[in-house]
Amino acid sequence: MISRYAFGSMIETDAVLHKPPIRTDRFSKLSVNEASMSLSLHLHEKDVVYGLGENVRGINKRGWLYRSKTVDEPDHSETRNSLYAAHNFILIDTDEPFALFFDYAGIITFDIGFTHLDEMKISLSDWNFDLYLIEGGDKIELVRQFRKLIGKSYIPPKWAFGYGQSRWSYHDADEVRTVVRKHRDAKVPLDMVYLDIDYMDGYKDFTVNEAAFGDLSVFTAEMRRENIHLIPIIDAGIKQENGYRVYEEGLEKGYFCVKEDGSPFIAAVWPGKSVFADIMNPEARAWFGEQYRVLVDKGIEGFWNDMNEPSIFYTEDRLKSVFAEISEMQGENMGVERFWHFQSIVNGLTGNEEDYRCFYHRYKGELIRHDRVHNLFGYFLTRGASEALCGMMPDRRYLLISRTSSIGMHRYSGVWMGDNRSWWSHLLLNMQMLPSLNMIGFLYTGCDLGGLTCDVTEDLMLRWLAMGIFYPLMRNHSAINTRRQEFYEFDLTDAFRSIISLRYRLIPYLYSEYMKAALRDEMMFRPLAFDYPEDEHASTVEDQLMLGRELMIAPVYRQNADGRYVYLPEDMKLLRFRVDGSMEEEVLEKGHHYVKVPLTDVVFFLRRGKMLPLAEAAQHSGAVDFNKLSFIKFGDQNMTYELYDDDGCSVSACDEKHFRIIGD
Amino acid sequence: MISRYAFGSMIETDAVLHKPPIRTDRFSKLSVNEASMSLSLHLHEKDVVYGLGENVRGINKRGWLYRSKTVDEPDHSETRNSLYAAHNFILIDTDEPFALFFDYAGIITFDIGFTHLDEMKISLSDWNFDLYLIEGGDKIELVRQFRKLIGKSYIPPKWAFGYGQSRWSYHDADEVRTVVRKHRDAKVPLDMVYLDIDYMDGYKDFTVNEAAFGDLSVFTAEMRRENIHLIPIIDAGIKQENGYRVYEEGLEKGYFCVKEDGSPFIAAVWPGKSVFADIMNPEARAWFGEQYRVLVDKGIEGFWNDMNEPSIFYTEDRLKSVFAEISEMQGENMGVERFWHFQSIVNGLTGNEEDYRCFYHRYKGELIRHDRVHNLFGYFLTRGASEALCGMMPDRRYLLISRTSSIGMHRYSGVWMGDNRSWWSHLLLNMQMLPSLNMIGFLYTGCDLGGLTCDVTEDLMLRWLAMGIFYPLMRNHSAINTRRQEFYEFDLTDAFRSIISLRYRLIPYLYSEYMKAALRDEMMFRPLAFDYPEDEHASTVEDQLMLGRELMIAPVYRQNADGRYVYLPEDMKLLRFRVDGSMEEEVLEKGHHYVKVPLTDVVFFLRRGKMLPLAEAAQHSGAVDFNKLSFIKFGDQNMTYELYDDDGCSVSACDEKHFRIIGD
Repeated sequence: MISRYAFGSMIETDAVLHKPPIRTDRFSKLSVNEASMSLSLHLHEKDVVYGLGENVRGINKRGWLYRSKTVDEPDHSETRNSLYAAHNFILIDTDEPFALFFDYAGIITFDIGFTHLDEMKISLSDWNFDLYLIEGGDKIELVRQFRKLIGKSYIPPKWAFGYGQSRWSYHDADEVRTVVRKHRDAKVPLDMVYLDIDYMDGYKDFTVNEAAFGDLSVFTAEMRRENIHLIPIIDAGIKQENGYRVYEEGLEKGYFCVKEDGSPFIAAVWPGKSVFADIMNPEARAWFGEQYRVLVDKGIEGFWNDMNEPSIFYTEDRLKSVFAEISEMQGENMGVERFWHFQSIVNGLTGNEEDYRCFYHRYKGELIRHDRVHNLFGYFLTRGASEALCGMMPDRRYLLISRTSSIGMHRYSGVWMGDNRSWWSHLLLNMQMLPSLNMIGFLYTGCDLGGLTCDVTEDLMLRWLAMGIFYPLMRNHSAINTRRQEFYEFDLTDAFRSIISLRYRLIPYLYSEYMKAALRDEMMFRPLAFDYPEDEHASTVEDQLMLGRELMIAPVYRQNADGRYVYLPEDMKLLRFRVDGSMEEEVLEKGHHYVKVPLTDVVFFLRRGKMLPLAEAAQHSGAVDFNKLSFIKFGDQNMTYELYDDDGCSVSACDEKHFRIIGD
Repeated sequence: MISRYAFGSMIETDAVLHKPPIRTDRFSKLSVNEASMSLSLHLHEKDVVYGLGENVRGINKRGWLYRSKTVDEPDHSETRNSLYAAHNFILIDTDEPFALFFDYAGIITFDIGFTHLDEMKISLSDWNFDLYLIEGGDKIELVRQFRKLIGKSYIPPKWAFGYGQSRWSYHDADEVRTVVRKHRDAKVPLDMVYLDIDYMDGYKDFTVNEAAFGDLSVFTAEMRRENIHLIPIIDAGIKQENGYRVYEEGLEKGYFCVKEDGSPFIAAVWPGKSVFADIMNPEARAWFGEQYRVLVDKGIEGFWNDMNEPSIFYTEDRLKSVFAEISEMQGENMGVERFWHFQSIVNGLTGNEEDYRCFYHRYKGELIRHDRVHNLFGYFLTRGASEALCGMMPDRRYLLISRTSSIGMHRYSGVWMGDNRSWWSHLLLNMQMLPSLNMIGFLYTGCDLGGLTCDVTEDLMLRWLAMGIFYPLMRNHSAINTRRQEFYEFDLTDAFRSIISLRYRLIPYLYSEYMKAALRDEMMFRPLAFDYPEDEHASTVEDQLMLGRELMIAPVYRQNADGRYVYLPEDMKLLRFRVDGSMEEEVLEKGHHYVKVPLTDVVFFLRRGKMLPLAEAAQHSGAVDFNKLSFIKFGDQNMTYELYDDDGCSVSACDEKHFRIIGD
């Protein structure tokens, strides 16, 4: 049962599709304190708090303070309070589990046992929000109810389940060709190459550096013949440059965010000084989305929307004032305090909170200050792109992922998990994000495998890929000035081939489970406690997940480990895929196990009475044959699997009718 | 057997006390490539590489690139290459284990399977070093041989095994009194309060802010009556200020580092512009050490030497040139590259590598550039302090710890593990540093419990203390602008009292095991594989340690965990100390276990045939009665324990004669 409570008058977020009527009785599940604009709840020792989507810390969110505010935050360490997303959904697993959704565009603080271990306190920046209380049923059912409320998840084309290789940046067509050739030559499957900011002309959105890439239509077609999709990046900021069509057109139409005096708000991002589409204006959103056409016309069918928190490197106004202050500092005998102030004003130019309070959107005929709708920015911009792409490619699915997100955007796009690092701890963190993202409808997701920044090691790369084969979005991405991490930069080619090939063998399974989750409002990845609610230990497991109806995954995320501890909430069959192509099965009993996992193996678990379909190896997703499957079973009885298959590209194909029961 | 090989002509480090003769045959254990100034070794799959002292990553150092260069590095994340120390000792556990020590004052890179998983490559900045090869015997024996080579470890007074409370900063005497009173009132034991930089007058070493602390002699005496020792900080940089005695005296005597032109090298640290003692000049070291007298005369018996990598916030010369460059930037239309350059030159002022190449030491009548002896700086400065303190307090032990260190300094001082963060991952990291620090003689060590920077949570604080009770140096320390973390800032007072009280009950054991390690060149903390060399799994365990001859410890380092996996290399008895003061014993079999550990429990393990002495609870170390012990035994037979006790304060007392066998 879903109850909606209204506090004040909310700014519309379009998170909820069909709003239930507002309840008129008092909300009493939590103590409400309007004076301090907060709600609080006593937490019992065994209570678990799930949710908050893409965030720091574990699956159980207890013991930290989270601030729902989209930020360009490259540091995902455990003491951060905000990452790229604002996902205001929590599920409290107590005697009678319930969930809360704060439908709110402003900034919320979730103190979940930070100040006091046994108290949750949720504080809002103003008192205008809708609060949804979801009750009745188990955790899986609570999520299903919520998902019905917020609408169906985005579904990408089938080829988006292939493997993608990315780098900031592949600088020209020949570099991309080399990437593709090296994969093909070594028989390492590949479906996508991502183009980072350097494919553009001077970081100007919707332009192409033709000196480096030639006619992009021609190159896109060439790549399509190689069964490769090119996926260019699109940034939020639009360069302020006279003669640049997109800038001039948006300016003329009044589609950009403005300062209080009505003049365009200017802030620097990649191209230097830039303007930003006014996402609260539906026409401006539609206009921004329409710009994608220039690339769609060149054969592009997928995009990644970046920098859309929105990220701000600096504003001109603040830069001027900082320069002025520095001028006065010169000649001073600088003590440490002054020196640190000097460094802090320079570093404080980037992502400065004040800057987000000095520009405006047009909303219902008025100017509304940005910070009140900050968390909607990337969501609405990506929605604009999505709606426009639907128009440009009628009945054709596109690949679309975004760095930032809020609840509601899951209908339009997937997300990647932001600018992570080549840290073993991020392998685990990014795994822990999966179920909380799934709860709120973000199903097409994955992280930068190997880590974006910092230097990866070969063992971390292999372990991360062995986890990454289960992510719907499987992308290897790394940043400029870091060690290259394409498979051919390492020694153990056979291991890379074997792990990535296994991904392709799993595509019928992953695609089927994805479609079940998308069409039936389910979670593809679940904490163990969702499937085994009576198992007390299951609720403490932070490094294993249930995947679909058949599998449990338990990646190795420690360097130099020869295996890991795995908890089996019931008897399961261990499946071990070796680098030589062989596969081993072993039944393990319910309970704790230490499982050996050599660096080149992939190990996961099959539930009793279930069967897993496996395709034959393929070099790209189009070659994966859903009609030529082998099966691994746990149990002697006859069993079945519910397979999904469709044309993989049309929107209308995404339908229950494409499920079929297969088995013996 | 220890073999010494000489490559070129080394700068003396005083790491080795009695040098064996140089071997004249070719060193062939590793391939030597003088042209690239490197040595390399093929690593087999099962080889484990131990060592490198205080460093990032795990107990097994494989899979990363480490750079031995002392730096003020507040970020201890896994992709850092250097921390505060330069500990050039590694132990390769292969078919016939051996160890290497690079006796070298310059910067070394240890690529231990970073570039290629199966290759170790060690590169030096110049080709002037002594290399020691230690062979013969097991890992414990290799370490013992090495320790004999480098000399006996520093031994603190017994009271240094008490609990210390610290904060950057307690600003006046009343604040310190409050800390002490709150501990005493709640019956939480305490022996030390640390004074951070604000006790000084304007951050000037060897001065006291008398407005805040009054006559320090009086306050020290008052605290001693409360059984509290005050431990002030001493920084490396000496303020450049006319009329400041220490500065003027050192300048007059020529005891400071100089620029190439012979003028004093000036760099800013806490007090702003500062000078640095010329550590290569024995007279300058002795003079620096002599300065401690002003505090010793006020009754101070312990110090922490900080900022001695040495840390440099900025140099005047570079600041000037950065200001000049910024001046030229003003009015420019800054693109992103220019803007980032702007930020990078400002941030690059701190710890700038170039700055370490622009000052000099006097060595054998010549000027030697700092970077060639960089890693000796803090070691030699602390040695100066230690030698002077010995003179001031004849036959009396002092507490001395240092942030930076190199091998050899273990004879003079302990170390703390640098400026860690309130991260769960640092609880584990700081545990993993223990055995590698012990290998090279640093026995008196510990980390800032609860984490220096970032906000701690109550559960992290409790778990960290439950590990911290085993650290010889048990100090709770936190930084300005972070959540306070004295026990009384939290709710579960009983748990804090019970955990810290247990520490005091363990003091007879910890002191005895410490003295065994110190007097017999042993490791107090060892990786499991050192005690169970035949146990293949033991060599992969990264989160448990052997402590002394009797115990194994296995802290909980995951938030919201109700326990953890523990590997027992043999049958052991689990000891569980509950918050209500009760104790539970349970025999567990060799193998893997999931052990429940509620937040307020302390759990560790007793080996078969061993007994653990426990004192009665006490409010300070002086009240711990070594003659009133109870025993926990694993086994029915008669057994004994080798207890150490002495007067706890004199140097001459530290002798084998104070061991005695107790038992039934």
